Amino acid sequence: MSRRRFVTASAAAAGAVIGGEALADDLADVPAREPGGVLSAFSARSPYVHIGRIPEATPGKRNIDPADAINSKTPLDRLVGSITPTDLHYERSHAGVPNIDPAKHRLLIHGMTRKQLVLTPDDIMRMPSISRIVFIECTGNGWENWKKADPNLTVQNTHGLVSSNEWTGVPLRYLIDLVGKEARSAWMLAEGGDAAAVARSIPLTEEIMDEAFVAYGQNGEPLRPAHGFPLRLIMPGFEGNLNIKWLRRLKFGDEPWMTRWETARYTQLLANGKAVQFQLRMETNSVITSPSGTMTIRPGYNSITGLAWSGHGRIAKVEVSTDEGRSWQRARMNHPVLPKAQTRFELDWQWNGKPTKIVSRATDEKGNVQPDRKSFIAKTGTNALFHYNAQQTWSIDGDGKVSNVLA
Amino acid sequence: MSRRRFVTASAAAAGAVIGGEALADDLADVPAREPGGVLSAFSARSPYVHIGRIPEATPGKRNIDPADAINSKTPLDRLVGSITPTDLHYERSHAGVPNIDPAKHRLLIHGMTRKQLVLTPDDIMRMPSISRIVFIECTGNGWENWKKADPNLTVQNTHGLVSSNEWTGVPLRYLIDLVGKEARSAWMLAEGGDAAAVARSIPLTEEIMDEAFVAYGQNGEPLRPAHGFPLRLIMPGFEGNLNIKWLRRLKFGDEPWMTRWETARYTQLLANGKAVQFQLRMETNSVITSPSGTMTIRPGYNSITGLAWSGHGRIAKVEVSTDEGRSWQRARMNHPVLPKAQTRFELDWQWNGKPTKIVSRATDEKGNVQPDRKSFIAKTGTNALFHYNAQQTWSIDGDGKVSNVLA
Repeated sequence: MSRRRFVTASAAAAGAVIGGEALADDLADVPAREPGGVLSAFSARSPYVHIGRIPEATPGKRNIDPADAINSKTPLDRLVGSITPTDLHYERSHAGVPNIDPAKHRLLIHGMTRKQLVLTPDDIMRMPSISRIVFIECTGNGWENWKKADPNLTVQNTHGLVSSNEWTGVPLRYLIDLVGKEARSAWMLAEGGDAAAVARSIPLTEEIMDEAFVAYGQNGEPLRPAHGFPLRLIMPGFEGNLNIKWLRRLKFGDEPWMTRWETARYTQLLANGKAVQFQLRMETNSVITSPSGTMTIRPGYNSITGLAWSGHGRIAKVEVSTDEGRSWQRARMNHPVLPKAQTRFELDWQWNGKPTKIVSRATDEKGNVQPDRKSFIAKTGTNALFHYNAQQTWSIDGDGKVSNVLA
Repeated sequence: MSRRRFVTASAAAAGAVIGGEALADDLADVPAREPGGVLSAFSARSPYVHIGRIPEATPGKRNIDPADAINSKTPLDRLVGSITPTDLHYERSHAGVPNIDPAKHRLLIHGMTRKQLVLTPDDIMRMPSISRIVFIECTGNGWENWKKADPNLTVQNTHGLVSSNEWTGVPLRYLIDLVGKEARSAWMLAEGGDAAAVARSIPLTEEIMDEAFVAYGQNGEPLRPAHGFPLRLIMPGFEGNLNIKWLRRLKFGDEPWMTRWETARYTQLLANGKAVQFQLRMETNSVITSPSGTMTIRPGYNSITGLAWSGHGRIAKVEVSTDEGRSWQRARMNHPVLPKAQTRFELDWQWNGKPTKIVSRATDEKGNVQPDRKSFIAKTGTNALFHYNAQQTWSIDGDGKVSNVLA
């Protein structure tokens, strides 16, 4: 629909919204007559804004003792744009959030290297830096919909384990040159400093050596403890679990270490009972965040909006179907479209008030297309827990109520 | 300096840093042995991170009763990357921060239009949206250094009235089409809903009609009250004062309204005693944020880093001099370089321990070059208070102490 034609249609809708209101009465309440609150060191949220993450235990267990939480999910249904508020970036931890004194923290870099180094966070912060806006996604994101769809789930419940921040730190390539990695070392162990000591073996491809970095900054400020303070490995496009928080060690070697985090955990169980190891890249994905589960919409104009992302690179296009997948329309995308970052998309839609289903489908610059659910399940089976990237369908009933369904 | 040569030099420095430390002892303290804190609705800052804005009254008055504050400045010396943390975006207000109930707030759009509209924040949020990362800068940023340089000022004091967030809202062009602006209307009045009712006349150039938008989102979440909740006009590249907070009215007309905010206030007093009105665009600017005022550096490797921005468009290059302006080196710039957004720059530097002065100079894509201080003063005089964009010089003494000076 051309913008002008759309505007004409929408103007009628806006007129309807305000039809019964008298201008003078409406505006009388607006201006404050007394000075407002004082200017301060920090800008707090409005008391009228109610927004927050939902701490969860295992899938479907939400009303829990906070001490049992293993993740807390980003409220995608309440957010706009592409940047996730720092304090709402999703969490996934295996031993809670350690409170680390940066003056006592060290990063050891050793193994198959010309020399070993022990660096303080201050040392790292004095080195050359880069900043990059990228998504981080828990490899378990989407698992709630693997076998069945609870109609009462929100998009925060189904897809809240992905977020995008601007991260700042020192390039891995710089640290590799600093310690003099041996050429035959093709793997790196990254180990976290929490009580779980999460440790992962990372293959040193050119892509990873070019793009990975050791971050100390997040949306302009020092990392928050929940996100790895004082140091975190950032692995653009790869499993959230590889973005090791509270980073204390990088070790170079010539084969993977087969830690419990890549053998007992974080392997992908296939339909035939065999498991895939080191399936590290996050796939092409998207989800409509509004309208989404538990919302109610009105007939007439609605903006359909959501987020798309891919571990392969930039999003090339996002298509939206408002007729259960029979036809597709290309959504607008916000610029800049950054590689391995979430991209906001939007489609203008006139809802005729009849029940339907809406769904989005992302395609990335490498030509990867987000699969429909049937194709995804046919290929992956239902034993697996990770890398769910099937298209998400929202059902809308005749009253405008939106529900989570399987396509 | 090539990266490999630089690495060699820097590796020696890193070696010196860790020379006296024994690996085993250093790492013994690192890993936590007990589970960390619980996962939660919000990620708080580390108790080891001390960061905040400084509320100020008029220039140079910092130790004040908070009720007297007219601005609070972003701690540029403590930040990394390009995005400003939402709660640290600078503030400048004329009647404090109103606490607005969005259910009662209205935006009136009227004047030379086919029809007038009264919109609720919810109406605005249902319209087509855009998101954009842009800087907002108070036109008074830099005024502390206009006539003299207090050597004890930090970069937060001298340049803390500029910040960059991702803002989300409805394009002005969409609202203009919705109300049917008359072709002869070349001006728009934007009025805020605080007790000061700040109101500015805005010329409706094609650039402004293409780029301005009415925002409700800031770094992914609803605006904070200090930054205009529930609605704010965003005017990429123009005076902070035009980015009207708590927006309650847009009126279209054929001449400016000559409000007190563009007659008694926010006009530029020239050397000859005459005043310039409607000097609205923010100029090409940059500042080194580290090392900067009151910091102390060590001989050897130091990363020189800072921010550059221009109301004309993208930053094309940033040059840094480490010898008081005699020679210049081109700094690296973080990507993406976005139009009318702050761009982080960085230069590797080996300090030889001798007193010197460092300074940065930005050039934008339109060819505008940030002036040195002498040229700027020769052109603008010392009566003015606004649009100070002269190059900022930091002096470094033999002990590595960094001070604010005039060049």
